[in-house]
Amino acid sequence: MAALLETKARTDLLNRLKRAEGQLRGVQRMIEEGEPCEEIANQMAAVRKALDSTHVRLTVCYMQQALEGSLHLDGEASTTLNGLLDEMQTLLGRGR
Amino acid sequence: MAALLETKARTDLLNRLKRAEGQLRGVQRMIEEGEPCEEIANQMAAVRKALDSTHVRLTVCYMQQALEGSLHLDGEASTTLNGLLDEMQTLLGRGR
Repeated sequence: MAALLETKARTDLLNRLKRAEGQLRGVQRMIEEGEPCEEIANQMAAVRKALDSTHVRLTVCYMQQALEGSLHLDGEASTTLNGLLDEMQTLLGRGR
Repeated sequence: MAALLETKARTDLLNRLKRAEGQLRGVQRMIEEGEPCEEIANQMAAVRKALDSTHVRLTVCYMQQALEGSLHLDGEASTTLNGLLDEMQTLLGRGR
């Protein structure tokens, strides 16, 4: 399986992961400061959701790159493909 | 809902979260260095699994604290309770 070649896709994923890392540090701070368990669990849930959607995004970016690189689509077909990939992302986002 | 009072429980959770944070930085490095998508996905899965089990652990620690703090158990009952909480952790760990 190939690497992600497009800078835009990589940057999108890296930004999501950096945000998740910040949230994760926030959870640690909450535990250190003795916040209530429910609030910690809420923040944990936010990090897990962010990573789930990043995982989906990684899959979609990979499919987009692989399909565009192999199918030699014209402009209209390329637009159709991108619409379908958006739908795929929505469906996978409901997956958990 | 209360905060976690026991230092041991907090330290356990913080260690798990620190490890997950390190893994998450590893994922970012893999993307930056252009590693194959499948390997990135594997590492992402490891982080998500670590956070899932930390979430379970948080719940178990909370239950332990709340039950021990309110039920005034003797030594034998306390051992039974801890065995049940281990089982709860195992069951919740299968949950996703």
